[in-house]
Amino acid sequence: MRPKRRPSRQNDPAGLKRKVLDAAFSMFQARGYNGTSMQELMAATALSGGALHHHFPSKKSLVLAVFKERVAPAVRETWIEPVRAAASLGAGVQSVFEQIIAGLEGRGAVSGCPLNNLALELSLADPEFRAAAADVFHEWQEALSERVRDTRGGRDLTKSARAEIAAFIVSSYSGAMTLAKAEQNAKPLRSTAQTLKRWLQSRQLDS
Amino acid sequence: MRPKRRPSRQNDPAGLKRKVLDAAFSMFQARGYNGTSMQELMAATALSGGALHHHFPSKKSLVLAVFKERVAPAVRETWIEPVRAAASLGAGVQSVFEQIIAGLEGRGAVSGCPLNNLALELSLADPEFRAAAADVFHEWQEALSERVRDTRGGRDLTKSARAEIAAFIVSSYSGAMTLAKAEQNAKPLRSTAQTLKRWLQSRQLDS
Repeated sequence: MRPKRRPSRQNDPAGLKRKVLDAAFSMFQARGYNGTSMQELMAATALSGGALHHHFPSKKSLVLAVFKERVAPAVRETWIEPVRAAASLGAGVQSVFEQIIAGLEGRGAVSGCPLNNLALELSLADPEFRAAAADVFHEWQEALSERVRDTRGGRDLTKSARAEIAAFIVSSYSGAMTLAKAEQNAKPLRSTAQTLKRWLQSRQLDS
Repeated sequence: MRPKRRPSRQNDPAGLKRKVLDAAFSMFQARGYNGTSMQELMAATALSGGALHHHFPSKKSLVLAVFKERVAPAVRETWIEPVRAAASLGAGVQSVFEQIIAGLEGRGAVSGCPLNNLALELSLADPEFRAAAADVFHEWQEALSERVRDTRGGRDLTKSARAEIAAFIVSSYSGAMTLAKAEQNAKPLRSTAQTLKRWLQSRQLDS
């Protein structure tokens, strides 16, 4: 008697999709979007081309899903939620830098901020990639801007002045992460955290 | 009578090399290192594979030459020389931002800082790429650090405190350029220039 054939359709499509997104997020982070082929993703996930294409008909649809379902949640978890939960903007920013520095030093390698990496690699290539990156940057800055309003120095500022402060925090963090990646060393993040701390204090934006 | 064969050896090897470096610099800037193939470089320069390989036996040797002969000079021309020539660190930083913003607005597109772009794409991929990027970042920060020493607020600072200020200027600029690229808009650079200006003034680092 021949054994019954196993159903050829995948029984856990959500799990499969998760697996592809996890692999793509980590490979894009390590080698970049253009440095990762769909073939390598198939090998890393042990999926057939057909199964991969069923979920993500193109590499473009895959990276857009990575922005939405991996990069944006990473920024929420690393930056937005801790800053919202902190006693003040200043305390939140410091604790985020400390967590990130501790993580880098634990891993012994600096692969950089996933949003930074993909935004720089892809923003010129395609308007949808650019919009996906800009959306995440906006959400991040919006959350910081809200916390600026809660501070002594920030409560009477205009919306646009608060937005400038948020953009400055994001810029100095992103740039420090670029330096840290080029040096493979957390020192630029440590030094930027110190300078930002003093700057926030001097403008009464820390409490 | 058959025409004499033209000599098959290239008569202007330095010109040829320059042509390849120019094309590679501009293609890496537009599409990234991994987004540019040697075939596309051959097409853009109208060179044969043999002629291209004669000057640059590998894509790696080409990008290392691009760091040294195009990216580093671009940082010197855009940042280091104007800051050295300015009346003060503060005036220099402001004029650099203004020049860069005017350039972006003239072109109508933000392709980003070439050092930023290549550093983020390549620093994890190969220790020589990382070292090439780090060398340029160091030269840039060293030049800023020297100008910090010329300011009222900077003259009594330790070498490491001056280096922190230089790193902060580079970080906030680099990150603002990343935001500007993601938004395809110079606004984040304008806003960072304003914030940096006030910060430099508050620490008497502007004159």
